[in-house]
Parts: sequence; structure tokens; C-alpha cells
Amino acid sequence: MGGAYHARMPLDRAMERLRERVREIDDLQAAASLMYWDQNTYLPRGGGVARGRHLATLERLSHERLVDPEVRRLLEGLSARADELAPLERDLVRVLGRDVERATRYPSSFMATVTEHAAASYDAWARAREADDYELVAPYLERTLELSRQYAGYFPEAAHLADPLIDAADEGMTVAELRPLFARLRDALVPLVAATAMAGPAAPALPVEADGEAGGEARQLQLTLRLAQVLGYDLERGRQDLAPHPFAIRMAHGDVRVTTRVDPGDLAEALFSTLHEVGHALYEQGLEPRLEGTPLASGVSAGVHESQSRLWENLVGRSRGFWRFALPLVQASFPELAHLDPERAYRAVNQVRRTLIRTEADEVTYNLHVIVRFDLELALLEGRLSVVDLPEAWCERYRRDLGVVPRGHADGVLQDVHWFSGLLGGAFQGYAIGNVLSAQFFAAASAALGDLETQFAAGSFEGLHAWLREHVYLHGRRRPPMALVKQVTGQSLTLEPYLDYLREKYADVAAAAVSP
Amino acid sequence: MGGAYHARMPLDRAMERLRERVREIDDLQAAASLMYWDQNTYLPRGGGVARGRHLATLERLSHERLVDPEVRRLLEGLSARADELAPLERDLVRVLGRDVERATRYPSSFMATVTEHAAASYDAWARAREADDYELVAPYLERTLELSRQYAGYFPEAAHLADPLIDAADEGMTVAELRPLFARLRDALVPLVAATAMAGPAAPALPVEADGEAGGEARQLQLTLRLAQVLGYDLERGRQDLAPHPFAIRMAHGDVRVTTRVDPGDLAEALFSTLHEVGHALYEQGLEPRLEGTPLASGVSAGVHESQSRLWENLVGRSRGFWRFALPLVQASFPELAHLDPERAYRAVNQVRRTLIRTEADEVTYNLHVIVRFDLELALLEGRLSVVDLPEAWCERYRRDLGVVPRGHADGVLQDVHWFSGLLGGAFQGYAIGNVLSAQFFAAASAALGDLETQFAAGSFEGLHAWLREHVYLHGRRRPPMALVKQVTGQSLTLEPYLDYLREKYADVAAAAVSP
Repeated sequence: MGGAYHARMPLDRAMERLRERVREIDDLQAAASLMYWDQNTYLPRGGGVARGRHLATLERLSHERLVDPEVRRLLEGLSARADELAPLERDLVRVLGRDVERATRYPSSFMATVTEHAAASYDAWARAREADDYELVAPYLERTLELSRQYAGYFPEAAHLADPLIDAADEGMTVAELRPLFARLRDALVPLVAATAMAGPAAPALPVEADGEAGGEARQLQLTLRLAQVLGYDLERGRQDLAPHPFAIRMAHGDVRVTTRVDPGDLAEALFSTLHEVGHALYEQGLEPRLEGTPLASGVSAGVHESQSRLWENLVGRSRGFWRFALPLVQASFPELAHLDPERAYRAVNQVRRTLIRTEADEVTYNLHVIVRFDLELALLEGRLSVVDLPEAWCERYRRDLGVVPRGHADGVLQDVHWFSGLLGGAFQGYAIGNVLSAQFFAAASAALGDLETQFAAGSFEGLHAWLREHVYLHGRRRPPMALVKQVTGQSLTLEPYLDYLREKYADVAAAAVSP
Repeated sequence: MGGAYHARMPLDRAMERLRERVREIDDLQAAASLMYWDQNTYLPRGGGVARGRHLATLERLSHERLVDPEVRRLLEGLSARADELAPLERDLVRVLGRDVERATRYPSSFMATVTEHAAASYDAWARAREADDYELVAPYLERTLELSRQYAGYFPEAAHLADPLIDAADEGMTVAELRPLFARLRDALVPLVAATAMAGPAAPALPVEADGEAGGEARQLQLTLRLAQVLGYDLERGRQDLAPHPFAIRMAHGDVRVTTRVDPGDLAEALFSTLHEVGHALYEQGLEPRLEGTPLASGVSAGVHESQSRLWENLVGRSRGFWRFALPLVQASFPELAHLDPERAYRAVNQVRRTLIRTEADEVTYNLHVIVRFDLELALLEGRLSVVDLPEAWCERYRRDLGVVPRGHADGVLQDVHWFSGLLGGAFQGYAIGNVLSAQFFAAASAALGDLETQFAAGSFEGLHAWLREHVYLHGRRRPPMALVKQVTGQSLTLEPYLDYLREKYADVAAAAVSP
């Protein structure tokens, strides 16, 4: 009866109704996003438990709306007449259809369970990390593993237990495709690390004075925010706050925020975490305004999103051209860096070191950190590795791939929040894909725009920004991620531009390090 | 059939189900509260329009849940067996019943319309105030008046158009009761102002140096937050931020925030706005934890809430005892106030002046500002005054009651946000009721606890805080406001303690001012 009703419903009325429904979901998700932002910036400690409950409710209400029979009926009716729809509407119907199909696999209560477990697990992880005590959080990880397998069970057609979660983050990707790709990447990186890594622990790349009363912190935030604006971050529609684990987040087209972390003694921490999050934020700020209120208004995948954060952080922010432009600004705020010249600054922020912490790793070692995690989470899901043996396996892989061994759990298996704040599988591949794509997009942009380094040196980033906005940002989720990659770069995901970039850059950096 | 089903449902299962339903409403309201907090603290300008839409959706979803037939059936079933319920549950059923009955009067879409109009009107007001141009916002006020009358129309039994909104904020109060009360108050205050007001415009009460780079701002926030803690504000469950119009807000038992406003040249602004909002926050932090997630977890009425902000701001924060304790702390942060002794500080913060701005008014003139607004909004609702004539009527009343005339609209009719961010009627009476009740509660506390001034001088506020928590805060909305007042103070709302307090205090202050 409902179907008959909708078959007679005029097409534009059906579309309008569908938009109403998805706008409501978007409103709930905006509320959840703000709650998440607040949880990681300003929430008083005593508000944590209630916040978990609030988020679980918003998650459930949002999911209930996504799988609502009316939405499914509207989608069916509109899909059947897709050729009568305008292109944007056709894309909306397709993408929403995919979201609904996935969401329909599990009951709303499952996601609420996951959300609540994630909040409890996060709390336990924070305590475990502080106490350097893995056992405090191991039972939560057991439960997470159980819930992750349960999630995979809702997608019985998947070839691997991790595939449904990978596909949720990076549409179309599978373990079967990623495993050999990452093996090739690892095989290329291990010798590159051997050839370029400097001895000893990492020292502050941009040592600055930690003056009292948070004055140094304020100076760091001021400078990094100014640079963010130069790159194109629109402060009328954004803001910067401190967070222990920096992130970027979108509440609306007019409200895309970044967070950052400050090391009082090293400007590099605030600078590169800001450039990284600004990369994410430029993507979200660059979405076409008329996508607002629909599931199209979002970055298209974890990997493509990460490609933009890494592009702005590394291919821009760690380039010679950038430092020719930025160093005078940096020195105006931090006279203690007056001894640097652009070339020295460039080398200082491009040191390769065998270190323990992923988020502080240089470009050459970074993906090795990611691949360790990817392999270990597959081993956990496949039952080849138990939760209790995870820390040992972690140390073993670090010894083998990176040549360093964690002193404890806090700089080892407990350093990242991902396994302790969501499901297992699907959380890490996006970082490596993002690195690879960052060079692939940058090469395409360079081919179109000419020598970007010269533009950066002149303080001009608008050319690159406009090109990325036109080719990537505007479209949101309208095209599947790998179709977008192919369309923009002319080829599928490929390692070559990335390995070329690393080899060329670091041969030079390593040579400079040897003969200063 | 639904009724028969619930009649057979065991009592505890029905109660559990009802609690589930109200917890969901509470979760949605927590999200809305956070969005409101953010809107007034950190929201980028570009996010304003979307925020209005998000809030309207949360408002609508929350309202839909409140008037849901299942909730009404559960309430009916439980009300019928109220004598079998535990006292807390009986109170929950009664209070929720009242909320549902009120909410059922109007459709969910009405409140969403009001919320969206309020957001647009707020924007227009901000522009109008900046431009000192009443005409920019007048059409919005016309629409607000229309919506306010429409709201009143949903309560046809009300004797006055303002009664439904007054009753929503201050249960049981009516225009018929408040008009003569406020007339008596005005008649007592006008001669008191004449006897105590100092000539000339107000000067900074606590002049401090506005040192550069927001350093003075940081010092002011640090000091006021420290004093807030001394009064009992729990920072594990709270925080302080800047806002153009300070407010306190509760997201959860563990998350009750205050905001404040800083005048770089006068510490009094930040200090008293903090003490005021902390008074609200002590109330919300003092609610019994097991009320969490129900409509009982809230201050009981606008007037009783305001009585606590005014009690902590004025009867504590503007007392001699407080200044004996606090002055050394103030001087440690602000050496430029070293010339003050406690008596001089006490007199400085208790100057009576004929001024234009309500929020900056002293205790003696404050209610005159409120009564002007109360009378004018009744005149608008009754049709005795048109929107276009409002500014002139405002000026005329200020001339007559306070002896001053606004220079423009910004320090006149556009100074307060209330008429431009909600409905008309019901927003102002709570301030005057709160002032009156603050003295009534304080007198009762003094009778129970002995000389509070001596305790304040020794830096001890815990006696007063504990007494108020036990008698007022813990109970939330469990008793109707006027029943609570009678139970705690032994009598109904009465002007006498308040007028006694003002007359005694200001006879002395005025005498001191004449012979320094």
C-alpha cells in the first residue's frame, strides 16, 4: 500500500520528502559531532559518562531514521526512475541507497551498544595508558573484538572479516587488494629508512622557549592559525581549539573546526598538527554548499580525506617553497629561531628517525607504523593472534620493521586510541592510502599548475587550493572514491608517484645531512 | 487496546518504560543545551543559520516525544495507581503529567516555528543593536507578538494572554497576582532610589588596568573562577567561558557550566556576573543525582532559580563579610586595588545610581528596570501599545521611574535579548520574583544558621551552601515552586524580607556615602 502510494507520488514531491528525512538525520549528526568536539576540547571530567549516553541516543535515533521504511520506499521509487532525476539527485539516491543498505544490516541497538562500549573502552584506555597497564583495557579490547566480528557477521558475503569495516571507510577496498599493496609499500620503505634514518632519538625540530603562563602556547596558536588562513582556511566558518588528539570536524557548511596540540618546547608539533587538520578542514569547507543537509556533504572516504591532510601537512608544509615563505613569519613570532635559514628549517622538519610514536613519525617511517597496525588487527580478527599476546606481537613487529622497541605500553600498543574507541579493522588503512594518494593528487596538480614550489615560496597557495577544490572538494561523496581518483589523476590508486616523491626528496635530505 | 495493555503491564515495567522515554527526551535536550552553549561561546559566525535549523529539529523531536501517545498512556496508567508509587516516582508522574499536558496544547511544528523565528530574530536584533536601528528588528518583533498571542490561544482558559507563558516559567503565577505585587514593589523602590542614589553616571566600581594581549582578561577569569570554587562551584563538573550575555547551563549532573563577561577596566563586571551565574550553577550542581535523566532534574522555576543567582551575587557577594574575606585575594591578583579596605570595597560595589542598563543596575534600581519591561510586554500583548510605539514608551517609563532617558535604542529598548529570542511575556517577572525570594531564603537561612556575615568573613560559605542544597537544590522540580517557598521559609512569597534588607543596607550605605 505504501508502495502504491509512492508510485503515484510525483517525483519532485518524493525527492522533497526524501530531502526532509535526510536533513533530519544530518541535524542529529551535527548534534553528535558537536558533542564529540566538546568531549575532546572542553567537557568537564564529570560529564563523561552522561556524554556517552547522549551520543549513543543520537546515534540510535540517527540510525533509526536511516533504516526507516518510508526512507526505503522513497529510495526504491526514486531509484526506479533514476533517469528522470537531475545528476545531483541521482547521486544522492545512489549514495543514500548504499548507506541505507549497509545500515539495514544491523539493528539500531547494535550501534548504540557499540557506541556505549566505545565510551567505556575509551575511559579504560585513558586510565590504562596513564598507568602503563595493558591489563586494565584488555577485557574491553576482547569485547571490541567480539563486537567487530559480530559486525562482520552482518555482511556474510564479505571475503574477509575486516572487509565490511574497510568498505565502510574506504568504499571498494578489500583486504585482498590492500595486503599486497602494503607489502610492496613496506618492501620499498624498509630499505629507504635504512638509507635515510639518522641515528639517535628525535630532537625538537623547531625548538622554542616554553615561557610561563601559557604565553608560549598562545604564541604557537596565533602563528599556526595565521598560517592556516594563508593556506585558505576560512575562519568565518571555522576555529581552532586545543585537543589531546587533534582532529577536524564539520558541523555544517559554515562550521568546520580544527583542533591542535601544543608541545611547549617544539613548534613543529602545533604547526604540523594544525596543517594536517587544516587539510581535512579545507576539504570539508570546500564542499559544494548545495550538498548541505544530505549524506553527500562529506569527504568521500578515509583515504581521500587523509590524502588532503597529508598533502597540506607534508607536500606543502614540509616543502622547500613553504619554508622560504613561512620562515620569516615563524621567526617574527619566535625570535629564538632566528639562527635558521629556509634550507636548515626544511631539513630540520624532514629528519628521518626510527621512533615509536606514529603521530610523530616522519614521512619515510610513517607508513611502517600504519602497516604494523593493519597487519595486527587482521591477525586479531582472524584469530591468529590473541588479545593477551598483542603487546608482544607489537614489540616484535616494531623491532623487525622499525628497529626500535617500546619501553612500555604507553609508547607501544596503547599509543593510539582507535582500537579502544570503535570497532577493530578499518581504522588504519586509510592513513596509508592517504599518504599514497597525497602524492598522486599532488603530481596531478603539479602537472596542471606548473611549479608549485615557486608559488609556495611567494606565499601563494590559492592555485593549488582552487584546483583541489574544483577537482576533489566540491564533489563530496558524489563519485565513489576510486572513480574520483581515476578521474582526477588519470589512473587508479598507484604507489609510484608516492615512492618517487619519497625517494627523490629523501635522497637529497640524507645527502644534506651527511655533508652539512 | 493500548489502555488495556498498560493496565495489565506490571507497575515497575511501566515505570521503567516511562523512564526510558523521558531519558531519551533528556538526551535530546542535553544536545540542544550544548548547541546553545556553543552558539553563545565558540560558534563561528558562518555556522549561525545551520545552528538555528539544528536546534529547531532537536526541539521538534523532543516535543514529539513528550506528546507521544505511549507516554500519555503510561502516564495515565501510572497516575491512576499513584498511591502505589514511591514518592520520587509519584513526583515524576505529576511533573511529567504537567509538562505533557502543556506540550499537548500545541503542535510540534509550532515550537519549531518559534525556534526558527527566534534564531532569525536574534540575528536581526544583533544587527539592529549594532546599528542602533530599531526598524531593522521591528518586523521580527511584530511576528514574535503574533506567535506569542498564538501560543496564548492554545490556553483559552487563561485570564490573561501572558498567563500561560508566566505559568510555564513560574508555575502558579498570574498577571492578576503579579501586577499588584510589582506595583507595591515599585512604590517602595522609587522613594528608596530617591533617598540613596548618587549623582552622576556610574564609574567603574573596581577599576583595574586593562593590560594588553588579553592578559588582564586572563587574570580576571582566574580570580573569579577561584572565588567561584570557594563558594562551592565544583570544577570537576563545571567550567567557565566567556560569553557576550552570561548564562549558566546544565547538560548533565556532571556538566553544569557558567559563562561570564569581562570589562577590561572594571573587575566588578566579571566578578558579579560570575557570582550570579555560579548561583544558578550551584542550584543545578546541587540537584539530587538520582533525578538525572528525568524532567525533575532542573531548577523548579525562573523565580526560584533567579533567587539563587541573586542570593550569591548580592546577599553574599555584595556583603561586608564577603569583602573582609575576598579583598586580600582580589588585591593579590590586582595590586592596583591595594588602596581599598574592606569597607571601601563594600561601598564601591554597593553604589546606587540611576542608570540605563538592567544587567549593570544596582540592587535598589534593578527591579524598576524589570517592572518597566513587565508592564510594557503586557501592554504589547493587550494591544494597548504597538510595536512601533515601543521605543517611545520605553523612554517615557525610564524618565518617570528611573529619572534617566536612553540616548539611543542600544541602551534602551534593544539592550536585552529576551523579546528578540523567544516569545513575549513570561521572560521578565522571574527576575523580580527572584530578587524578592533571594532575601526571603536568606532570612530563613540566617535564622537557622546564625550570623552568616561572620562565616563569610572567615571564608566559610559551606554552611549556607549546605543549607540551600538540603532545602532547595536537592529537590529539583519535585515540589511546585510556591509550595517549596512556603515549606522552606514558612510563608508564601512576601515582599517584607526583601524590602527590610534593602532599607537597612542602603540607609547605611547612603549615610556612609554622605560622610566618607
